[in-house]
Amino acid sequence: MSFLYGGDYNPEQWMNSPEILEKDIELMKKAGCNVMSIGIFGWSVMEPREGEYDFSFYEKVIDRLYENGIKTILATPSGARPAWMSMKYPEILRTDENGVRHKHGVRHNHCFTSPIYREKVREINEGLALHFKDNPAILAWHVSNEYGLDCRCELCAEAFRVFLKKRYNNDLDKLNFEWWNSFWSHTYTDWSQIEPPLSIGETSSSALTINWKRFATHQTIDFYKNEIEPLKRIAPDIPVTTNFHGDLTNLDYFKFKDYIDFACWDAYPDWESPKGNAETAAGVSLIYDVCRSIKHKPFLLMESTPSNVNWKQYNKLKRPEMNILSSLQAIADGSDSVQYFQWRKSRGSAEKFHGAVVDHCGHENTRVFKEAAELGERLKNISAVQGSDVKAEAAIIYDWENYWAIECANGFQKDDKKYKDECLKHYKYFWRNGINTDVIDSEQDFSGYKIIAAPMLYMIKPGVSEKLFEFVKNGGILVSGFMSGYVNEDDLCFLGGFPGGKLKELFGIWNEEIDTLYPEDRNSVGFNGNEYSAFDYCEIIHPDTAETLARYNDDFYAKESAVTVNTYGKGRAYYIAFRGDDDFVKDFYDSISVGVSSAAEYVSFPDGVSVRTRENETEVFLFIQNWNKTDVEINVKSALKNIETYESVSGRVGLKKYEILILKKAKN
Amino acid sequence: MSFLYGGDYNPEQWMNSPEILEKDIELMKKAGCNVMSIGIFGWSVMEPREGEYDFSFYEKVIDRLYENGIKTILATPSGARPAWMSMKYPEILRTDENGVRHKHGVRHNHCFTSPIYREKVREINEGLALHFKDNPAILAWHVSNEYGLDCRCELCAEAFRVFLKKRYNNDLDKLNFEWWNSFWSHTYTDWSQIEPPLSIGETSSSALTINWKRFATHQTIDFYKNEIEPLKRIAPDIPVTTNFHGDLTNLDYFKFKDYIDFACWDAYPDWESPKGNAETAAGVSLIYDVCRSIKHKPFLLMESTPSNVNWKQYNKLKRPEMNILSSLQAIADGSDSVQYFQWRKSRGSAEKFHGAVVDHCGHENTRVFKEAAELGERLKNISAVQGSDVKAEAAIIYDWENYWAIECANGFQKDDKKYKDECLKHYKYFWRNGINTDVIDSEQDFSGYKIIAAPMLYMIKPGVSEKLFEFVKNGGILVSGFMSGYVNEDDLCFLGGFPGGKLKELFGIWNEEIDTLYPEDRNSVGFNGNEYSAFDYCEIIHPDTAETLARYNDDFYAKESAVTVNTYGKGRAYYIAFRGDDDFVKDFYDSISVGVSSAAEYVSFPDGVSVRTRENETEVFLFIQNWNKTDVEINVKSALKNIETYESVSGRVGLKKYEILILKKAKN
Amino acid sequence: MSFLYGGDYNPEQWMNSPEILEKDIELMKKAGCNVMSIGIFGWSVMEPREGEYDFSFYEKVIDRLYENGIKTILATPSGARPAWMSMKYPEILRTDENGVRHKHGVRHNHCFTSPIYREKVREINEGLALHFKDNPAILAWHVSNEYGLDCRCELCAEAFRVFLKKRYNNDLDKLNFEWWNSFWSHTYTDWSQIEPPLSIGETSSSALTINWKRFATHQTIDFYKNEIEPLKRIAPDIPVTTNFHGDLTNLDYFKFKDYIDFACWDAYPDWESPKGNAETAAGVSLIYDVCRSIKHKPFLLMESTPSNVNWKQYNKLKRPEMNILSSLQAIADGSDSVQYFQWRKSRGSAEKFHGAVVDHCGHENTRVFKEAAELGERLKNISAVQGSDVKAEAAIIYDWENYWAIECANGFQKDDKKYKDECLKHYKYFWRNGINTDVIDSEQDFSGYKIIAAPMLYMIKPGVSEKLFEFVKNGGILVSGFMSGYVNEDDLCFLGGFPGGKLKELFGIWNEEIDTLYPEDRNSVGFNGNEYSAFDYCEIIHPDTAETLARYNDDFYAKESAVTVNTYGKGRAYYIAFRGDDDFVKDFYDSISVGVSSAAEYVSFPDGVSVRTRENETEVFLFIQNWNKTDVEINVKSALKNIETYESVSGRVGLKKYEILILKKAKN
Repeated sequence: MSFLYGGDYNPEQWMNSPEILEKDIELMKKAGCNVMSIGIFGWSVMEPREGEYDFSFYEKVIDRLYENGIKTILATPSGARPAWMSMKYPEILRTDENGVRHKHGVRHNHCFTSPIYREKVREINEGLALHFKDNPAILAWHVSNEYGLDCRCELCAEAFRVFLKKRYNNDLDKLNFEWWNSFWSHTYTDWSQIEPPLSIGETSSSALTINWKRFATHQTIDFYKNEIEPLKRIAPDIPVTTNFHGDLTNLDYFKFKDYIDFACWDAYPDWESPKGNAETAAGVSLIYDVCRSIKHKPFLLMESTPSNVNWKQYNKLKRPEMNILSSLQAIADGSDSVQYFQWRKSRGSAEKFHGAVVDHCGHENTRVFKEAAELGERLKNISAVQGSDVKAEAAIIYDWENYWAIECANGFQKDDKKYKDECLKHYKYFWRNGINTDVIDSEQDFSGYKIIAAPMLYMIKPGVSEKLFEFVKNGGILVSGFMSGYVNEDDLCFLGGFPGGKLKELFGIWNEEIDTLYPEDRNSVGFNGNEYSAFDYCEIIHPDTAETLARYNDDFYAKESAVTVNTYGKGRAYYIAFRGDDDFVKDFYDSISVGVSSAAEYVSFPDGVSVRTRENETEVFLFIQNWNKTDVEINVKSALKNIETYESVSGRVGLKKYEILILKKAKN
Repeated sequence: MSFLYGGDYNPEQWMNSPEILEKDIELMKKAGCNVMSIGIFGWSVMEPREGEYDFSFYEKVIDRLYENGIKTILATPSGARPAWMSMKYPEILRTDENGVRHKHGVRHNHCFTSPIYREKVREINEGLALHFKDNPAILAWHVSNEYGLDCRCELCAEAFRVFLKKRYNNDLDKLNFEWWNSFWSHTYTDWSQIEPPLSIGETSSSALTINWKRFATHQTIDFYKNEIEPLKRIAPDIPVTTNFHGDLTNLDYFKFKDYIDFACWDAYPDWESPKGNAETAAGVSLIYDVCRSIKHKPFLLMESTPSNVNWKQYNKLKRPEMNILSSLQAIADGSDSVQYFQWRKSRGSAEKFHGAVVDHCGHENTRVFKEAAELGERLKNISAVQGSDVKAEAAIIYDWENYWAIECANGFQKDDKKYKDECLKHYKYFWRNGINTDVIDSEQDFSGYKIIAAPMLYMIKPGVSEKLFEFVKNGGILVSGFMSGYVNEDDLCFLGGFPGGKLKELFGIWNEEIDTLYPEDRNSVGFNGNEYSAFDYCEIIHPDTAETLARYNDDFYAKESAVTVNTYGKGRAYYIAFRGDDDFVKDFYDSISVGVSSAAEYVSFPDGVSVRTRENETEVFLFIQNWNKTDVEINVKSALKNIETYESVSGRVGLKKYEILILKKAKN
Repeated sequence: MSFLYGGDYNPEQWMNSPEILEKDIELMKKAGCNVMSIGIFGWSVMEPREGEYDFSFYEKVIDRLYENGIKTILATPSGARPAWMSMKYPEILRTDENGVRHKHGVRHNHCFTSPIYREKVREINEGLALHFKDNPAILAWHVSNEYGLDCRCELCAEAFRVFLKKRYNNDLDKLNFEWWNSFWSHTYTDWSQIEPPLSIGETSSSALTINWKRFATHQTIDFYKNEIEPLKRIAPDIPVTTNFHGDLTNLDYFKFKDYIDFACWDAYPDWESPKGNAETAAGVSLIYDVCRSIKHKPFLLMESTPSNVNWKQYNKLKRPEMNILSSLQAIADGSDSVQYFQWRKSRGSAEKFHGAVVDHCGHENTRVFKEAAELGERLKNISAVQGSDVKAEAAIIYDWENYWAIECANGFQKDDKKYKDECLKHYKYFWRNGINTDVIDSEQDFSGYKIIAAPMLYMIKPGVSEKLFEFVKNGGILVSGFMSGYVNEDDLCFLGGFPGGKLKELFGIWNEEIDTLYPEDRNSVGFNGNEYSAFDYCEIIHPDTAETLARYNDDFYAKESAVTVNTYGKGRAYYIAFRGDDDFVKDFYDSISVGVSSAAEYVSFPDGVSVRTRENETEVFLFIQNWNKTDVEINVKSALKNIETYESVSGRVGLKKYEILILKKAKN
């Protein structure tokens, strides 16, 4: 089977231009496309008047594409509803965090609880399923689009109360205790007193906020389950998914794992930005690794731009070769597709300047089209990779609930505590060293890994402490540090000393205080013969059973421990008490003998080059990517085969700027 | 006839201080004033209770002024209505862009559709017209004050729908197509679904936003037409105007041209700011040139401050001589008046620290008063200039609808695409070189000009392309460039390649892509033997019939064309594909032989000096203005006459800091 | 009697953990505590259901503490009401400055006018008073908590109208005149037309805004009087107070003086911030001096943190010794207590990371606890100081109404005119030189002082001018300057020349104009042989009877007077026409022979050391505080006694970093 290659396609924008639809097919074939995502914003066409369904336009398009070898990922249209619906049923309109119900407009702005909206969605999805269930063109269901915004209307408030009753066993006293509602006289005496967090209402209860965010994920999934019910019932063989996106802040995507047949992602990184492409690429890989780790199997890159986007502060063009490099990065990280938003630029409205394979000029004689066609060719040549796994012995814990809890903690630095940056800092060590990495939440199984980095693991959910003990006892290396082990799942601080949840014993230390530094402040830490800056946060910790590996140099906690290691069972638990920079993190991991598999076994490579591997039962595929703006040289340690040219490759090999080399090695 | 000289006068603030009103007359005469604007915020005095009109106070003041040689520009009071009216008729209160209806307060905050407010305005205007129609003191009607804020209530929404029905021939399908409503399922199925853009509603439809702005201008003019109906009916010989202001963003003032007898402007530049007075002065002249180009005849400077304003971030004093220099700049640019806001500082409320001719101290022994009196004297001496024309062979296109479309385009750089800055950059070349310039929109007649600069002419409205072809064919020089020819009048992109609207043929190029740069990015362009920075935007263009004049030096489009010229008929069409700086623009125009009349024929002058001309049938008047903080020297090429001293002037002449020299030359 | 030492205690958070309550008592005794503030957020415990009062839990705690030698400051719980009350009586919810009524949530967000909320508060206060009136543990009533937020609902609007009717003798014409409502046609024709200032309503009337702020203080006091009525009636011997806080912007605390038995303050300075501790400490002393000057007797430090806070941008730890130094600073400035927020960290919700004496670990083996215990010991040793006075011959005028008027003045620099900074600049001179200072408003008695600094005394309220004349006539030194004497109590500008209110005569100058400078602008002033920068504001003044002490060097007002002195009676009135820096202010005061008592009589000390004195009938106590991060040396001029060690101290003495030395001298 070959990789999926195509993109979002909006033929409803060209209903009156049949010649453009025909031209599209011609161009799709030229570009090597084999799949299009269709119908994402098609509700007005599918149901122009209430109850009058008409799928014929899309059917004709889908059939015509199929005749030309192009399959369809068919969307349910709930991402944007028709105007007539908003007018007739105002309850379906979203109420925002200020408690204001919105008017019709934009998209993605419905109430996810409204029974009417759920019914309308279920009905049209049923219509779609009945109409297309036997259509051989349909590859999968693309359910709605980029779920994300929550609604805070009274219907949602009531659903929230139901959610909380279940979570707290119908016991309001328990909720009051767990939320520490005795503080500021916040004790509820009736469930009806609980309202969603609103800018003009309750903004001070962290437990309310965290649980609201949990509910938002829960209710979105519940809405999604309502969407897929007719799809699964009527067309059980067509897989379902919904396209994830963004920066890992909003919905907890790990919670979708049982309800999607595969994960997929819409990726829009800041290529060519001042921070540099290697730094950007590492952040992108972290996200792909999250996406792959949701179901621990290949995912789809569902959207990406072949050129620029149109909604950032500065919408720079992708440079030549960057689209190929960045698209194949997704493949390297476990994607089985490269999909674009969008096939053809729309003529009007909000996204007309978003990059597309086909520009307003309408022909193929553009740089962007030519590169898209070149990629189409390369994807065909590497189809052996399709379906193969990414195997990882290292894991980073990125946990949404932990993120929410850190962000709504009053204390430390007020605005951004930089949890994601801290995760990325650790992640980058693995990425730069050719070590495949899973990115998981704290609820996943830890047993398959040799090393787990869990920076700023502020919230210790039930069972997590036990899993960490078990992991280390069995020989795992655990790396954590400042701001870890502060609160339980409801944001109650652990009593008896941090890190709580028994982690004091695992790390063999007691964390007495955390000092928050002004941006201009610096402490320093001596480690491994080098001096490193400590900034933002410095904890004052006291080793008990742990051994001290580094100490602070300055301020009143000079000579106190800054890095410790505790041996437990067959493993080791490291605690880094301060925020350090990339150089420190590199030195730290280099010095502790990480001991996991790495692509560095096969190839040595300079800075700005990343190497990731996929493998199937017989072969390992190496994706060697040069993010530098200059040509570099790598060293292939023993002969490997270039899967595109079939040439044998070994020794010193040149990699051009933005070049990607895909090699394979037979398994023994 | 002499220039008008005076200002806004608010005697209603001193009703209980007749001695102050008498003192005012004494001081007005000392200052050389001959006209006052009266009644602008007088509604509470004119109609203290509903239906009880009383114009006697103002009549007494107006008559008393007239006895002392001072005429009146009489205002209609709709800029601020009485509190009793807001309380009784809440529908007249403005609803803002958040959909929130305001409470009574401030000013300029009415609904411009409300039938009740229109009736109240018509009635009091009728009363004013009946009362003052035969009063010889009345020079003109000053209708309302600084129109600008729009209202988004349901009454306005309904009027918007009527406006759209007319614009789209009652054809909702046509509107759906032109607005590209198939995007994001935005198709309307009933006119009632169309609502004004609101922060909590539709923010994503650029066509909606642009048409709303068109409507806001339309409806303001409609409101204004309701205001002037009784004035024109009852007092047909008294001219009407309304005072324009601001930064060319909000109302499209060109659309008023058929409804005002003359244009006027309220000018509040940032004199003495860090950017320098010459830069400021060029921007001011651009605005005066817009104002004059509305009706292509002299306008009035209706408001200006003799000293500081009170509403900017830093409210610095005008330095000595600056008030004279800046006031006479308006005369140079075509004004037949110098009017101040305000004659006397109010004692209390929001504007008590706004500069005025008479300060709180109440006497004439102030720097500000003395300079105002000196200017009064000078205006008398130069009255021969009054009524003369500003003739221009060069034009800059500044088009409000184009501005709106650029600003609401999602893409490129998100915030400010700097359309106005780009226009000013081209304008400054002409201004610095003593070339009179009109500033027109794209709907005006182009035939009288020798050169037209049309930077960033993103929107090509119907007929504009044809006019540009005709203009160049007949020998005109057209200068345009990046971000031009992208969309039609409803913000639909041109298909088939940019610049669209057939401009590909006129410029002889195809614009394949536009690269948006980060602020720290720079490309460079070699032109005319020099290297210039390219920043913000670089288009990748391909010459067809055009000749390349300059190329990029860097990045993947190095060696591609950056400046081209295409010969068409007797003229030439230049395309500048990138954003350059002032130096580049200067070099560009210097090198292309602009070939238009310039004051440089008569006089050579250094940087920071501007020269503009007015002329009547027999004479040309040169206004030579030194914006530098140092004395400079100019060279008068052949003998001219100083119209204030009657001396003959020729050869090297010194100009003091902030000095203005007004010379004349008899026409042959 | 000894100093009070303790803090806010929230036993209701640990109702189900009796062992923690017992542990608390053990730890309180270890720390030397003798008082706790209890019940501040206890309403949900005290009245779990409407009308069902239950004070037994608090009674038990209070009694148990008392048995252990710890008294109670008992709070009324109105700072946060129970959720059931908000649900049942929505009128009690606060309406904000946008006109939006809030939902239940956070705290401090009630309507201060609502008859229902007042009744609920009165009833529970009556219950508390009846229950605890004879309890010997109760030291004082802590009424509500940190009053501050106003409400703008219709009930408050109506109360505002009643307030205005009284202020303007029921004469709407008088109000219209004083508010200058003829401006922008703002004349009211009925009291009902007056509404609170709202972001969507009237924002332009400075007199409305100032009077609203007056009303907000008035109505808060009215609410407070409703709170204390049952307390004073039922338990007349227990003193009442309410805890003040913040940055001197919101409520005018001077107006509370007749309704509190003593003043108290919640202090949360930015220790260890980049601006330096001495600068911070001066600002703190200014605030303590305001607090003490409300009733001109010792106050209580009611809240402070033993470590960090949790709500600032960066929440840095207090360094070792800083808690002792900063706590004793309050004692030095006239406090008879050191109270913490909070005794024990809460486990959950908004303030769980606010510093406390007892941390989440729950034991005493922490740096913070140990230092708190050390301070407890020191406070016992210096109890002789308790009750002594701070005597001041110098005063700074800080006037809330003046602040409000300056802030809402449209003009000058738009955002922050820096009135408080200017007061602090003058204050610092006294503070650095060991001169005790009162900080008073312009309504207080001036007769006891030798020098008064009144920077930016923009608003001259009735009688103030006369008091200043009298003060100077009798030999006082008055220092004022730019932006003084502009408006009367209703924000009407003085006519006839600034400074108005007859102050032209007192200062012997006329202020013609004020120039506002851009941040990058500088003028300079020659004074006393030195050159100083003039920035932000430069007035152009003309001496009449005054003598010029300094002149401007630059710009068009070069050579004009910049500092003047006028002799009047036995005194002198100085006018500083520009904003200068600390160095100028120091040179200025050094050169004019301030002539007031100073601790410098007893001790000489370097920069970064402050010395303040308290005294009783027989002794003077010197608090010598080293704010430097290095050890310094002072010189004790004649032998004094260390009140903690009983050692005699004289000559050169070392002061460690953050050390405080408390000496005493017998009065003769």
